[in-house]
Amino acid sequence: MASEFAKIVVVGVGLIGGSFALALKAAGMAGRIVGVGRRPETLERARSLGIVDALGGMDAATLSDADLVLVAVPVAQTGSVLASLAPLLGESTIVTDAGSTKGDVVAAARSAMGARVARFVPGHPIAGTEHSGPEAAFPELFRDRNVVLTPLAENAAADVASVRRAWEACGARVQELGIAEHDRILAAVSHLPHVLAFALVDHVAARPGGDKFMSFAAGGFRDFTRIASSHPEMWRDICLANRSALLAELDGYGKVLDALRDMVRRGDAAALYALFEEAREARNRWLERGGV
Amino acid sequence: MASEFAKIVVVGVGLIGGSFALALKAAGMAGRIVGVGRRPETLERARSLGIVDALGGMDAATLSDADLVLVAVPVAQTGSVLASLAPLLGESTIVTDAGSTKGDVVAAARSAMGARVARFVPGHPIAGTEHSGPEAAFPELFRDRNVVLTPLAENAAADVASVRRAWEACGARVQELGIAEHDRILAAVSHLPHVLAFALVDHVAARPGGDKFMSFAAGGFRDFTRIASSHPEMWRDICLANRSALLAELDGYGKVLDALRDMVRRGDAAALYALFEEAREARNRWLERGGV
Repeated sequence: MASEFAKIVVVGVGLIGGSFALALKAAGMAGRIVGVGRRPETLERARSLGIVDALGGMDAATLSDADLVLVAVPVAQTGSVLASLAPLLGESTIVTDAGSTKGDVVAAARSAMGARVARFVPGHPIAGTEHSGPEAAFPELFRDRNVVLTPLAENAAADVASVRRAWEACGARVQELGIAEHDRILAAVSHLPHVLAFALVDHVAARPGGDKFMSFAAGGFRDFTRIASSHPEMWRDICLANRSALLAELDGYGKVLDALRDMVRRGDAAALYALFEEAREARNRWLERGGV
Repeated sequence: MASEFAKIVVVGVGLIGGSFALALKAAGMAGRIVGVGRRPETLERARSLGIVDALGGMDAATLSDADLVLVAVPVAQTGSVLASLAPLLGESTIVTDAGSTKGDVVAAARSAMGARVARFVPGHPIAGTEHSGPEAAFPELFRDRNVVLTPLAENAAADVASVRRAWEACGARVQELGIAEHDRILAAVSHLPHVLAFALVDHVAARPGGDKFMSFAAGGFRDFTRIASSHPEMWRDICLANRSALLAELDGYGKVLDALRDMVRRGDAAALYALFEEAREARNRWLERGGV
């Protein structure tokens, strides 16, 4: 049987793009996979690691006969990548992305692609590690993870279904959300915790004697701050792209923290216990429902 | 060779007390280990799991011939446990504890034990998991972890050395700190992150549709909030016991968060990048120095 996608182009062959390529190959869904990106040395590493079969450029030779293009670059670059791609796409090429925010990406896509935005199916694989680059890619990254699609009114149902099948072949659970809903949910469960973790490391490490403080940190600190080893450029872009939802979450979180601070200040043991117990119960229920 | 501690009494046979017992047995440092605690059913489980050899009570038969007593109970109970122990201790019994805060524990010990506080060597194994109870105990919990002793002026050097050897036999790195220094450091690297994690789960889960939000959480959220599955009573006690240091950390963290919020609000990409990059570098340097 022929692969569903005879030719796939991955723009940005890092953790996400590289893992997508490896997973589709492993699933037998991909014919030829071509890597495109900013940095020639990164692309060469992706080829030598066997993640992509060949390297291409932002040109008709690379793009006009592609069945599927995944754009997996920091969200601030998505607009310019789509603007370059749009005039080069073949008749049957579907484009999707892996951006962690969708409102800004869709706005950029509309502005960059004009009528061709109909071929762009916005997506977001909710998976990752704190590592980046092609060396960090592995085919199981998306297994049992959520991938959200936020289809556009202009998208053909067949194109949405095709992108869905690609992610399902990677082992992901594919769900659809509205664009604003996606951005609101991700601000709470992903963008806010990343920002909090970066802030904690900064708060502890930047003080005089910070190294000594850090030397007494244990497993709780390590796990809490794991995401503070994430890619600074990617997270800067996400914060700015999803600014209003993130600000709302920061404000809401600040209120919880103020209330908690007040419980500590006035020594309200019962209120502290209730808050901690509720949080523990909520987290344990989430783990029981499947967690991640 | 006879074990260094012919009889050890562990008061509170949960994650910490149970792991201490298992580790000392594995190291051949313990003769007989007797468990004491509030809940008969917990003690029975500890015995049936082979963590302790026998069960005892707060009585002379249990305590007067003990070489070492470890008090491993939530910090708010330490004072009353020490008050009960003090009149029952034998001439050569050394007492230590595993409390996460030291200022309040030492104050309680002085008030509870009078002159016998000389036999109390305050300690804190900086290790744990989000699980609790004897089932969670395992002998490797303290391996390569920091254990802090905050000796008192009254302590005999030989007693401090004896407690040090016990923890070193568990595989721990033993260090000494001043009491206030310990509490300041732990407020930053442990108590603050726990509070932040509890607050995040509460913030996300308690809203309308919180379950749906949680269903899109991924590995970052899981690891960030792991410590929010910790024991609510233990953490309530720690927050209150180390109140002033924790309030100072909450204030300092709040300032970092306010600054970060302002960078997001005004779209200051360079400042966000710098903060994230510094945090990542600091965390990675910590990992390179050994991390945990």
